[in-house]
Amino acid sequence: MSELKPYLTDLIAEVDAALDRYLPAENTTPETIHKAMRYSIFAGGKRLRPVLCLAAAEALGADRSVAIHAACAVESMHTYSLIHDDLPAMDDDDLRRGRPTNHKVFGDAIAILAGDALLNESFVMVSRTAKTARYHGLDFVRELATAGNSQHLIGGQVMDIEAEGKQITREELAHIHDTKTAALLTTSIALGAMAADASPIQLSCLTRFGRALGHAFQVIDDILDVTADTATLGKTAGKDLVAEKSTYPALLGLDGAKAEAQRLTGEALHALDELDGDATRLRQIADYLLKREY
Amino acid sequence: MSELKPYLTDLIAEVDAALDRYLPAENTTPETIHKAMRYSIFAGGKRLRPVLCLAAAEALGADRSVAIHAACAVESMHTYSLIHDDLPAMDDDDLRRGRPTNHKVFGDAIAILAGDALLNESFVMVSRTAKTARYHGLDFVRELATAGNSQHLIGGQVMDIEAEGKQITREELAHIHDTKTAALLTTSIALGAMAADASPIQLSCLTRFGRALGHAFQVIDDILDVTADTATLGKTAGKDLVAEKSTYPALLGLDGAKAEAQRLTGEALHALDELDGDATRLRQIADYLLKREY
Repeated sequence: MSELKPYLTDLIAEVDAALDRYLPAENTTPETIHKAMRYSIFAGGKRLRPVLCLAAAEALGADRSVAIHAACAVESMHTYSLIHDDLPAMDDDDLRRGRPTNHKVFGDAIAILAGDALLNESFVMVSRTAKTARYHGLDFVRELATAGNSQHLIGGQVMDIEAEGKQITREELAHIHDTKTAALLTTSIALGAMAADASPIQLSCLTRFGRALGHAFQVIDDILDVTADTATLGKTAGKDLVAEKSTYPALLGLDGAKAEAQRLTGEALHALDELDGDATRLRQIADYLLKREY
Repeated sequence: MSELKPYLTDLIAEVDAALDRYLPAENTTPETIHKAMRYSIFAGGKRLRPVLCLAAAEALGADRSVAIHAACAVESMHTYSLIHDDLPAMDDDDLRRGRPTNHKVFGDAIAILAGDALLNESFVMVSRTAKTARYHGLDFVRELATAGNSQHLIGGQVMDIEAEGKQITREELAHIHDTKTAALLTTSIALGAMAADASPIQLSCLTRFGRALGHAFQVIDDILDVTADTATLGKTAGKDLVAEKSTYPALLGLDGAKAEAQRLTGEALHALDELDGDATRLRQIADYLLKREY
């Protein structure tokens, strides 16, 4: 198996090209909203969710193109959630993916609407996934809608806001991460697997991998917020402390948090041991995520 | 055919009961978001869109229960758009359906998230519509997603915001109404018709009816904003003038606007003349809308 970097570059290029085909051109009326949608979608994110989606389909022996619609859908849903989370009424962030946040460029009203539009489009995208022997089109729609609902992606953001300035337990923090981050990440993998007609056992392995990886990812994000600088992050560093957010470094100390990230990544990799498929790329991606600068 | 009022009461009760089954209970974690979603959904709206959805299915001879999921979906999408439109960053409204707006009660952050959650749920709801001989589940999902996208519901709100304080032409105003109001209203009727397995000709008749009715409805809304008081409207009267919005009364004068509402209602009723079905209830609803107090 070749190196990870050129593989990621290929996948990201495919996702970007597909997103470009999906979203109305910048000069489509009304232009403001289409400029705003494209501004955030093409801000140069890591594309972690769509990459995992495509890699999951490949791990089961399918051509990764079967999962391209689902890959676009999870990225579109993720980007909408970032735009809304960054609003002054929520986390009030000026910087995202190394650029001014959507509302700093387009104003709050357009940012809210651009987020709405990307959420709406994510369902168009996922609905294009071709049915398989085991899964029909609506299974993909419902999988995405569950990850995005008021008990997962949105519920996690609510609990995150409500926990600000409060002491919460490790279990409560894990529940916030599970809903706010791990759910959509797990769904990204599940959708890719379903597009490849995953067996129930394959889907269960990959779902356990996704959930553990999602937790690991969030713990590492918390660590980076403390240890990295704003230029490296592409978003404002140290903001968790300012917002009095509960984080793993705050609860467990920096070394404790690093150990927890390692433990969760181990758990993720362990879930792949039982996968009837070729998990090499998924393992590489998990390793790569754990070794992000901190 | 009996009177309209008890018929509407029955339909609204059915829609309310179905929405109550769909939405997580108020004590579901995190409670705030579920309270906020239910606050706006059960604020006593007219339920015009779900009523039209159910009545369209009945007009084609189906049991209206086939369209109940779609009826909930269009109401959920409509309610999300009201919550977001009322935000301080947009129309900045304090009153809706006779009660304080969502953000006045729950704050801007929760209001944004409650709107997001209702948009997300609308796709779950519409995805439950049973397939027919002519339409499969994804047709319903895509019909809803088209009405809600950046060139229809969201695009209309963008153009509405951008037109504030500007002189716009009658054609531009008609385009805003077409996207902001008529699109979802037409889709409400189309979804009900599709759930009843409408033929292409039936769907075309009902779509023309919906579009003309949607325009008539918006013209009447503009008139009521000038002529009715806040208590009657349940939302702040006279706000179009304050926001320097272009409206039909402003462009055509009050009498001109009333004539236009009548003309559009005539156009809507005329579209029903060719319907292979029983259009009595749809006619009654159109008459009822035209005769709203002004």
